[in-house]
Amino acid sequence: MEIRTLQISDQQPIISVLNEWWGGREMAHMLPALFFHHFNQTSFISEENGEMVGFLIGFLSQTHPSEVYIHFVGVHPNYRNQKIGQALYRHFFQKVQKEGRSIVRCITSPQNKDSIAYHQRMGFTICSGDALIDGIQVHTNYDGAGSDRVVFEKKL
Amino acid sequence: MEIRTLQISDQQPIISVLNEWWGGREMAHMLPALFFHHFNQTSFISEENGEMVGFLIGFLSQTHPSEVYIHFVGVHPNYRNQKIGQALYRHFFQKVQKEGRSIVRCITSPQNKDSIAYHQRMGFTICSGDALIDGIQVHTNYDGAGSDRVVFEKKL
Repeated sequence: MEIRTLQISDQQPIISVLNEWWGGREMAHMLPALFFHHFNQTSFISEENGEMVGFLIGFLSQTHPSEVYIHFVGVHPNYRNQKIGQALYRHFFQKVQKEGRSIVRCITSPQNKDSIAYHQRMGFTICSGDALIDGIQVHTNYDGAGSDRVVFEKKL
Repeated sequence: MEIRTLQISDQQPIISVLNEWWGGREMAHMLPALFFHHFNQTSFISEENGEMVGFLIGFLSQTHPSEVYIHFVGVHPNYRNQKIGQALYRHFFQKVQKEGRSIVRCITSPQNKDSIAYHQRMGFTICSGDALIDGIQVHTNYDGAGSDRVVFEKKL
């Protein structure tokens, strides 16, 4: 497996598999072109024999100089449980530590139990929210009306 | 009119008026919380007697050190043609020039003729695309399948 920096030319391949990788959920609108143009140094593609098998899109917070944010991570359904996501996260952590960042933030949907468990295994803690859903702290309407989110933080 | 820096607490007021300000179009999904948390120094609110009458959300490109990107600009429908947008753009231009940036990028939908004309009046040029729609250069599928965009650039 090789990890390389995201390029503008990765937009079309990623957008075209996004909904399928997310089990049919409509996700493509969450990755407009701006993420492929302006945050390349902290976004990565994982390839296996030249095929894209995973990606991570993150950026340095411009408000909080010690923080970074991971917007999206995806792994090809046929390549799961092979530590591809873990390798992408670790590559990202190393990169942003070199930039002097020490706090990683990201979110997921309360429904996405696999994602919640995954982030906890990766050392993320769940930030206190304003509601408890299935025993998990949730920020209601975090991304707008009806878009509740679980909010994660990890100190590097 | 006063212009101040965007705060996290501006998310709910903005999200709640967004679709109305855009004439009923569904826009709220384009402004997830991350834009209110991580790009505050280059995002601004315009207020008139304490009421929000406009906002601009932009960021410094992390890929291109001379570039900035404006993601969203909105003006209250009752306060249009009062140069509120112009003041927000100019405030942003001044801010990012101090950060050593000289190229501003943004996009709009080909259908949004008012926005196209507005950006041209503000000194933006339209970048060459891969199609000509109503005499305007357009990048087809720029933000994903079916999401054509007019791409603007302005040198400061």
